[in-house]
Amino acid sequence: MNENYLLTTPLAQQLYHQVAKDLPIIDYHNHLCVADIRNNRQFQNLYEIWLATDPYKHRLMRICGVEEAYITGDKAPYEKFQKWCEVFGSLAGTPVYDWSLAELQNVFGIDLVPAPETAREIWDTAEKLLATPAFSAGSYLEKFNVEYAAPCAGIREDVSAFEDIPGLAPSLRADDILLPDKTFLQELSQVSNVSIVDLQTLTEALATRISRFAKAGCKFSDHALDNGFVYIRDDGKNQCRLQTVLSGETLSPADTQALRSEMLRILGKLYCQYHMTMQLHIGAQRYTSTRLRNLVGPAGGFAGIGNTLDVQSLTALLDDLEQTEGLPKTIVFTLNPADNGPISILSGSYARDGVPALVTQGPAWWWCDHMQGIKQMLNEFASFSVLSTFVGMTTDSRSLLSFSRHDYFRRVLCMWIGEKVAAGELPADFSVWKPIVEKICYQNAKELIQEGK
Amino acid sequence: MNENYLLTTPLAQQLYHQVAKDLPIIDYHNHLCVADIRNNRQFQNLYEIWLATDPYKHRLMRICGVEEAYITGDKAPYEKFQKWCEVFGSLAGTPVYDWSLAELQNVFGIDLVPAPETAREIWDTAEKLLATPAFSAGSYLEKFNVEYAAPCAGIREDVSAFEDIPGLAPSLRADDILLPDKTFLQELSQVSNVSIVDLQTLTEALATRISRFAKAGCKFSDHALDNGFVYIRDDGKNQCRLQTVLSGETLSPADTQALRSEMLRILGKLYCQYHMTMQLHIGAQRYTSTRLRNLVGPAGGFAGIGNTLDVQSLTALLDDLEQTEGLPKTIVFTLNPADNGPISILSGSYARDGVPALVTQGPAWWWCDHMQGIKQMLNEFASFSVLSTFVGMTTDSRSLLSFSRHDYFRRVLCMWIGEKVAAGELPADFSVWKPIVEKICYQNAKELIQEGK
Amino acid sequence: MNENYLLTTPLAQQLYHQVAKDLPIIDYHNHLCVADIRNNRQFQNLYEIWLATDPYKHRLMRICGVEEAYITGDKAPYEKFQKWCEVFGSLAGTPVYDWSLAELQNVFGIDLVPAPETAREIWDTAEKLLATPAFSAGSYLEKFNVEYAAPCAGIREDVSAFEDIPGLAPSLRADDILLPDKTFLQELSQVSNVSIVDLQTLTEALATRISRFAKAGCKFSDHALDNGFVYIRDDGKNQCRLQTVLSGETLSPADTQALRSEMLRILGKLYCQYHMTMQLHIGAQRYTSTRLRNLVGPAGGFAGIGNTLDVQSLTALLDDLEQTEGLPKTIVFTLNPADNGPISILSGSYARDGVPALVTQGPAWWWCDHMQGIKQMLNEFASFSVLSTFVGMTTDSRSLLSFSRHDYFRRVLCMWIGEKVAAGELPADFSVWKPIVEKICYQNAKELIQEGK
Repeated sequence: MNENYLLTTPLAQQLYHQVAKDLPIIDYHNHLCVADIRNNRQFQNLYEIWLATDPYKHRLMRICGVEEAYITGDKAPYEKFQKWCEVFGSLAGTPVYDWSLAELQNVFGIDLVPAPETAREIWDTAEKLLATPAFSAGSYLEKFNVEYAAPCAGIREDVSAFEDIPGLAPSLRADDILLPDKTFLQELSQVSNVSIVDLQTLTEALATRISRFAKAGCKFSDHALDNGFVYIRDDGKNQCRLQTVLSGETLSPADTQALRSEMLRILGKLYCQYHMTMQLHIGAQRYTSTRLRNLVGPAGGFAGIGNTLDVQSLTALLDDLEQTEGLPKTIVFTLNPADNGPISILSGSYARDGVPALVTQGPAWWWCDHMQGIKQMLNEFASFSVLSTFVGMTTDSRSLLSFSRHDYFRRVLCMWIGEKVAAGELPADFSVWKPIVEKICYQNAKELIQEGK
Repeated sequence: MNENYLLTTPLAQQLYHQVAKDLPIIDYHNHLCVADIRNNRQFQNLYEIWLATDPYKHRLMRICGVEEAYITGDKAPYEKFQKWCEVFGSLAGTPVYDWSLAELQNVFGIDLVPAPETAREIWDTAEKLLATPAFSAGSYLEKFNVEYAAPCAGIREDVSAFEDIPGLAPSLRADDILLPDKTFLQELSQVSNVSIVDLQTLTEALATRISRFAKAGCKFSDHALDNGFVYIRDDGKNQCRLQTVLSGETLSPADTQALRSEMLRILGKLYCQYHMTMQLHIGAQRYTSTRLRNLVGPAGGFAGIGNTLDVQSLTALLDDLEQTEGLPKTIVFTLNPADNGPISILSGSYARDGVPALVTQGPAWWWCDHMQGIKQMLNEFASFSVLSTFVGMTTDSRSLLSFSRHDYFRRVLCMWIGEKVAAGELPADFSVWKPIVEKICYQNAKELIQEGK
Repeated sequence: MNENYLLTTPLAQQLYHQVAKDLPIIDYHNHLCVADIRNNRQFQNLYEIWLATDPYKHRLMRICGVEEAYITGDKAPYEKFQKWCEVFGSLAGTPVYDWSLAELQNVFGIDLVPAPETAREIWDTAEKLLATPAFSAGSYLEKFNVEYAAPCAGIREDVSAFEDIPGLAPSLRADDILLPDKTFLQELSQVSNVSIVDLQTLTEALATRISRFAKAGCKFSDHALDNGFVYIRDDGKNQCRLQTVLSGETLSPADTQALRSEMLRILGKLYCQYHMTMQLHIGAQRYTSTRLRNLVGPAGGFAGIGNTLDVQSLTALLDDLEQTEGLPKTIVFTLNPADNGPISILSGSYARDGVPALVTQGPAWWWCDHMQGIKQMLNEFASFSVLSTFVGMTTDSRSLLSFSRHDYFRRVLCMWIGEKVAAGELPADFSVWKPIVEKICYQNAKELIQEGK
């Protein structure tokens, strides 16, 4: 992995080294642990910072047949790390293979491939470094030149911790708002100091909290619209459905879909009001193995890719929001590569004077965030939308080391442009691509942060 | 953009220059304005011929955040053109970027990239040329070596104008037949001179008109089967459903699907009788933004890509037609790239002695008509069908300048073959590819025009 | 077609010649005629061994418009062969074009391209060779270095013939078990010597037969879950549904889906017990042209590709099996390329200590088994699963000559790795790829054969 890793053409090298490489990182949606950063946690060893909370790696170990005791179970940290090194060689071809080598090299300066014979040296080298202040949790924002990072927080959470850390702001994880239950509504009443008795007071409570998030720097919200999502237009019965929830009863699946749709309409307007971008993460199949769910929790790396999107649901949602002047800047992510076309084309279906790409596709997401997925997404986005409006990479990760994936993304972007230009498919002109690379790697996301300011 | 634009291998250059380049164009389905051609309209400026009626460009300007006033609104033509030039540089990567440069160069000999600093020169140069007879609307058929072009017309329309112009013939746009209402049926009665009172007389009226279209040279019909299309086999109730329509009442969605299916069965037989090819355009999501629909009309460039095809509906339709000896030559288009496989494979599922590719996939359509879409379609068609039976390009465009896209298609075709051959994936033999390129670029479509003659 | 056919890089050549080329073939699922092999049938001519029972070729001839009389009809064998040679040149780009040249060369040493002018020479040369013992049906296992081949057989069939032939074992084609009718159940009662009166005795009867298959070397079963498959969780009513079937009545479509789901649950447990791998072939659209189905039978080459998979059905099936400890090693095949992502990702969703890739995607299947399909599948599998766990190629073919496609697959695999390495996307290290190629081409499948031994 040398300085021209993945930069297969002279133009790619030029674009990366002269343009992309030194741009600050804006990571507008992730799952980092704010307490770790605030407390400047000192990780004990590579297991803690690299393996313990990384479902990507857990998943691959399971595919290799590794015993769960070595993945999330009761084996000692070094035993787990050894097992990881044992299987590492068989992971060639996966994105995690490349990311892992990059993380070792870029963060720890370790130029070894994990293997049984290198495990001890890698472990010891990292352990020494991790004991130093230069490797505490608080160091990574600066190390990776992160200008803005947005770990997600729920609407009921206290976001004051974010205000202590320069460059950190919450992104609103709004899934619980879409599927409210009695407990949620009671707690929301408490933290907002608004007694929720109907849709109007629920909206007030949400506005109070979103205003608080906005004060803490929040510019992005996110919503998981998992496999099976259906949008239901307003039928006038959502006041009634909310009463059912408030009374502690359970809604039917159809009523749940309807109330969720109402919540999206309410939230869309609030996001417009507070100049927040709405992210929609579409198409995960989170229910696969009940056994693994019980064993390692709901986010343990065993989620699958759902059916292709119901386009009519998504277009109707966006249309309803637009008609009621409640359509915020919207970024749509898909986990199913077959949806790249239908989603990227939507940027031409909704528009607002002066706003580029009001509705736009986000970067290759989660299991799709790899060479193949990024290139597929670029191919479709460039063909169906306008590449220069692409909002660029975010990690969506739980790991501080994942900021390294911005570098990977930037290299792939420059590689992709360089190869298309070399093939005669794109204009061979550095001056055409320089501003486009700047926009994708930094400026387009930066504009979303500055919106309303 | 030189003479070997996109021709990345020696074989590609040989195939293009020796075979593809000088073949006449058969554009078997488009939306050209026949009155313009017949009246030999003299366009005033680039805005009129290049921007005014091109939803592809309108769409991209919206994605860039351009104010609608500069797109379809009340700004002056030159102001709109200037705005187009302003955003043009940020469109690199879109197909329209490449097409636009090709159109300027191939038609007007202008070798400039639209930009604020070139806008005036481009505008003035074009204006002078457009004032000359060599650039009137009637000149483009010859300029582009168009042997046959088929602008679409509705079944009620007078098609005599087509007969005045060599090389022009109507293609039948049959969407209104699939979803008839009382007014449509009354007008059809009038123009056909057949009183429509049931399915039999409706069939007679259609036959009368289709016969008239055939006399005007019509060899192609087309039908939009938008997102949500479901085929319903004959349940014996369509006579009754037609009565409901004749009485001016509205059908339920399910009854609408059923009657539409009946109309497809009736039309299939008529197309067989009159040696017409049936085109099915599948998978558009035309309802997205109600705001844009109200503002700029139903074809304003804001359509999306629908869900993947319901394969069982399509196979049942084709099966029913085949079983009643009413399956004409059929070309299926899809707007969803994920449908390329299921659609291209169908050429092996229906067959008739002596007829190559009775059912076949059409070229990459509408938003998919670009490098990425054409290559994807070629990849799947070659793998799942037989490349030499491919019926080739049609523009489906409203713009006279779009004939230039045949050249783009031919270059991509030769590029695609050349690269596969260079990679050792296809036989390295000019004599194998020469007849295949001829068939795809000209002869296969030509045979459809000559069918029944 | 020389020794480096498709091996476009030095690494590809090294991997193929030093690793892949000489590995024995394990063809774990096919449709070969066991009687032919056992009786050491001497084929009379190329028509008998090459064209007569090959729906891939029939399909292409239909697409070319060849009269059915020359495909499956009453024309003489040499006339049919001539017609095949006539259209052959127009098939460039199809996988069958490449396979055919490879089969002629690798098996018969014929280095000619079928054409009208070569037809006679090819026919005569092959005829002479076919008359010799070295070309009898029994010779191909050795000729192709086949270590294990598994022609499929139904549960009621006598599998003793398999035991006479080294390297041959049955794979269980279990479609009739999933959709049982009264006759099937009566015959199953007879061959198993278990009187089937309820689900328990049905399970016993199946266990008796599966035990018999296991004794004959069976390690694989397979199930077609065609377009429209829906999985229904246990509702306690399947005992009742079976009674309906036993009484000779027909189940409703919904009840059929439910009972089929129950049968999958029963079979899963039995496969676990007998250490058999379960294959699921998903997404065929077998009902297309009724005319062709009546003319040439249900497997005549006119099947299409169905809708994309219902992910929730597949995940629920696998989850139910896992929860009841009845999830065997499972290989999922798809006919719809858009399902590659959702299916390959599933290997991370189910796991068992010590078992690599408990649920895994199988190789590009049937109409997808070509350069494009294999590469697509490798791209997605490497990105979403772990390449080194891939179980590799099986022909699923009716033709003895199709073993040649293992060589094609191995070349494409080495080509794919070589090109990714050359592009800097994969590690440039022969020692990384050698074990992975060995595993994919041989060892992973070998382990399935040895499971439980």
